[in-house]
Amino acid sequence: MHINRIVRFLPVLDWGRHYDRKTFSGDFLAALIVTIMLIPQSLAYALLAGLPPEMGLYASILPIVLYAIFGTSRALAVGPVAVVSLMTAAAVGQVAEAGTAGYAIAAITLAGMSGLILVLMGVFRLGFLANFLSHPVIAGFITASGVLIATSQLKHLLGVPAHGHTLPEMLGSIPAHLGEINWITFLIGTLATVFLFWVRKGMKPLLMRLGASTSLAGNLTKAGPVLAVVVTTAAVAVFGLDAQGVKIVGIVPQSLPPLTLPSFDVTLLQDLLVPAILISVIGFVESISVAQTLAAKKRQRIDPDQELIGLGAANIGATLTGGFPVTGGFSRSVVNYDAGAETPAAGAFTAVGLGIAALFLTPLIFFLPKATLAATIIVAVLSLVDFSILKTSWRYSKADFTAVAATIILTLSMGVEIGVSAGVILSIALFLYKTSRPHIAEIGLVPGTEHFRNILRHEVETHPQFLAIRIDGSLYFANARFLEDYLFARLVKDEAIRDVVINGIAINEIDFSALESLEAINTRLKDMGIRLHLSEMKGPVMDRLQRSHFLDELTGDVFLTHYRAHCRLRNGMDMPTVPSVS
Amino acid sequence: MHINRIVRFLPVLDWGRHYDRKTFSGDFLAALIVTIMLIPQSLAYALLAGLPPEMGLYASILPIVLYAIFGTSRALAVGPVAVVSLMTAAAVGQVAEAGTAGYAIAAITLAGMSGLILVLMGVFRLGFLANFLSHPVIAGFITASGVLIATSQLKHLLGVPAHGHTLPEMLGSIPAHLGEINWITFLIGTLATVFLFWVRKGMKPLLMRLGASTSLAGNLTKAGPVLAVVVTTAAVAVFGLDAQGVKIVGIVPQSLPPLTLPSFDVTLLQDLLVPAILISVIGFVESISVAQTLAAKKRQRIDPDQELIGLGAANIGATLTGGFPVTGGFSRSVVNYDAGAETPAAGAFTAVGLGIAALFLTPLIFFLPKATLAATIIVAVLSLVDFSILKTSWRYSKADFTAVAATIILTLSMGVEIGVSAGVILSIALFLYKTSRPHIAEIGLVPGTEHFRNILRHEVETHPQFLAIRIDGSLYFANARFLEDYLFARLVKDEAIRDVVINGIAINEIDFSALESLEAINTRLKDMGIRLHLSEMKGPVMDRLQRSHFLDELTGDVFLTHYRAHCRLRNGMDMPTVPSVS
Repeated sequence: MHINRIVRFLPVLDWGRHYDRKTFSGDFLAALIVTIMLIPQSLAYALLAGLPPEMGLYASILPIVLYAIFGTSRALAVGPVAVVSLMTAAAVGQVAEAGTAGYAIAAITLAGMSGLILVLMGVFRLGFLANFLSHPVIAGFITASGVLIATSQLKHLLGVPAHGHTLPEMLGSIPAHLGEINWITFLIGTLATVFLFWVRKGMKPLLMRLGASTSLAGNLTKAGPVLAVVVTTAAVAVFGLDAQGVKIVGIVPQSLPPLTLPSFDVTLLQDLLVPAILISVIGFVESISVAQTLAAKKRQRIDPDQELIGLGAANIGATLTGGFPVTGGFSRSVVNYDAGAETPAAGAFTAVGLGIAALFLTPLIFFLPKATLAATIIVAVLSLVDFSILKTSWRYSKADFTAVAATIILTLSMGVEIGVSAGVILSIALFLYKTSRPHIAEIGLVPGTEHFRNILRHEVETHPQFLAIRIDGSLYFANARFLEDYLFARLVKDEAIRDVVINGIAINEIDFSALESLEAINTRLKDMGIRLHLSEMKGPVMDRLQRSHFLDELTGDVFLTHYRAHCRLRNGMDMPTVPSVS
Repeated sequence: MHINRIVRFLPVLDWGRHYDRKTFSGDFLAALIVTIMLIPQSLAYALLAGLPPEMGLYASILPIVLYAIFGTSRALAVGPVAVVSLMTAAAVGQVAEAGTAGYAIAAITLAGMSGLILVLMGVFRLGFLANFLSHPVIAGFITASGVLIATSQLKHLLGVPAHGHTLPEMLGSIPAHLGEINWITFLIGTLATVFLFWVRKGMKPLLMRLGASTSLAGNLTKAGPVLAVVVTTAAVAVFGLDAQGVKIVGIVPQSLPPLTLPSFDVTLLQDLLVPAILISVIGFVESISVAQTLAAKKRQRIDPDQELIGLGAANIGATLTGGFPVTGGFSRSVVNYDAGAETPAAGAFTAVGLGIAALFLTPLIFFLPKATLAATIIVAVLSLVDFSILKTSWRYSKADFTAVAATIILTLSMGVEIGVSAGVILSIALFLYKTSRPHIAEIGLVPGTEHFRNILRHEVETHPQFLAIRIDGSLYFANARFLEDYLFARLVKDEAIRDVVINGIAINEIDFSALESLEAINTRLKDMGIRLHLSEMKGPVMDRLQRSHFLDELTGDVFLTHYRAHCRLRNGMDMPTVPSVS
């Protein structure tokens, strides 16, 4: 019991006990491939977040190790990811000027806050809160973020100064600088972009036609960005293009991650609180969906609350070693998985690889053009952009479409924080609105059966003296009055009715407000000389009604089946007993 | 059609056409009684709102007339009410000092904003928004407000300066002034309070024992506050008690309501926006529940959206004639109804009565002690205080109890605005939390019937190779993952299962996120060699599923009845067709 509790918080104790040579070799190979892929990606996402490139490497070292210790996914690779880097830039850009020390400290602090929030959510088992990010909101947000990220890189591709965190701001700031376009930068960026697209689509088939095995072709494809980095860096170095205005990465310190601490400035913490919450939740949702997809393939189980702790630890690791907010990334995790990672140790080996890169390889990227990193980002994020969600959600439900469209439009026009917050609030509001007007069907008997169906959809038997309605929804404060209005509007039209039966098969709850409303309905019907009956109420609902005075005052009966109610009210016939629905 | 549309916005055209001598005499008598009752009440509520007493009269004149024209209730009496006056004091107290001109202007402006909000809500038919104030929140809020109001009057009863808008503030500010208690004031206040309590409880029986008819006794009882006012005013005047420190009303201008306009200062409007929304909604909820209670007794219909317009017009009337926020009050409406008011014209006659009072009677109340008004308020609001809601809601449901308790505690400790806002947010959060973990029952066949029940509650037939579950709730984003977790946790325990049937009789909706989740479940089950079936899905839900690819990919079948699914999966037996549930 005691050990189990420790294992709950330290999954490493579980898989670590069974570690052997075979798992080691699988993990090692995966780590090698992921390391090669991660070097340009880490640099690029630091650029996207507006931070010095080395912070991208730092954010990929200790976080990976801590996730390996505390996380539950065997394949998840943690580090900077596109959407979270964009959100970091948006959040930190509000409190500090890009390129200043304050900016880097704010990003480090944001990672620490996010880590703390994630750990607390995990300890208090609040992982379910992430479910309030509906699929339409996530899909819309990711697509809009992809567009924002790609647009934000245009300035690096064109070699012009531009700024802003929303689409209108960014696009609006470019025209003024069109005369300043650096055509060499533009050429490098465009060629790198085209090359990287080709690597994604055309290179693997070509290599296989040339005789390479599937896995070799796949692994070489992953090295595409490294190739682009090497070639463009060499071109700049050889031809001295930096003197012609091509922006380069420049001096990157040769060092292991430094020890850093977040700021404890109260104003800064207040300013970053909402962004930190949003980054935590978005990062968690992105990470857990990747982890669950990969776990399903191997029948492994992901514990969402433990994942929160794993990601929280990773972010606390980032704050202590000069990093910025991290989470489980899709592309790196898939690569890790495909390359044969068996345990989280693969992540630890990746960390060693990146540590070596940070120590020894940074002088080699002095001449790396920023346009190449921008190309890497653009190609990576455009795979996130998928506007087809607009079409599929439109066909399925207008409410879901509204949530998608609003999230996309607001994210593009007002920025990531407003976009995702508005999406969540709108989803909840639409849900509440729908449940505030539940579907109510008048029902009748399907001839020759004991089944009841909507009189509008089917040929069924009804009786002029009694009205049977099925309420397709729980009764709660927001719709309690709706039922009253429906019922009395219906009764005004039909003076013959002497009995009303509410069929409760689809009523999953009756809250206190709805109970008050039912009592009011019962009293008003009594004044009108009409009895109120209930049928097929579920066990938990009946349990609760029995704790109130409602059943004592009910003018009619409670029927265990609707058929029984139908027969009794029609002609006094009685039926065999069936237990109440529960 | 055209006329009907005008009548929709001007109910006066409806009842006005049938006005005759009999309705006139009923209305006139009711107006007389209500006028006598309203004079002290209006002065008292102005005191409660921190405003000059004449504003209480002004707020009862034009608003009544405008409500009579635009409102739908035949008995509702509009004017200052206790809770809204308290909320006015809290809101205006944040932007101006009590007793200043700015304070009065802010109150006038608040009425105008509230009027505009109500009219807009009515025109856009947003009356349903008031349903989000759940019964527990309203009950808790009214009770806590009653306590706050009574406490706020202690300073007038003791004759000490005290202040604050929350219970700790008000109680905390009294001890420092205990030495300054004016004992004559205290005596007047206490005697008036005891007398008014006795009028409520003991006077009517006494009068009837003395031979008065029920209606005479009732009407004399209503004059109780007037008697208290007359006696205490006379006492102060005769004995010169004002010279001994008894605070009196003093000079009240002899005038019809003045023409006033709200302030258009943007900062003020911004500061008052949230309070104005809360006052509008709370006022509307209080008013509509009174109107509906009275209408039910006479089988009249209240149109909530038109009520919004009526109340909005009344508040706009208040802003134009030196009043403050008004709404339909419980006690005055009941008195109006009991006294035999037949049409809204009774309200118009009351307005005339109050206009006469404002013109001619104000010099008579120069010596009226504020302690008497405080006593009137205390006795009136203590009837609002009902802590039994804590007990009944506790017995019925812990979630509802939580909402009640939180609303009461927060209203008392943090003030009316935070209290009611937190109550609404908490109710919604609790509802979302409950629906995010729907009840899921494993079901089996009740022997000898075609009914299915929870295997945990009943002796039912099941089959080891198939699992049938009934989901008691709509599937939407907040619980989509919950179903996945439930299902796979269940399947891990039982390797024999080859078919899963989801019974949809209680699923009222499947949103886009839940559809994604069902698709994921279908795919994961397929990987495990398990088929997924649906049974008794409702018509609207099936309509929507048919617009997606889900049914094409579904590994199992869709059964119109669960019995059919049970038979088919058990032994290939087939059943007669029943149309799908809709």
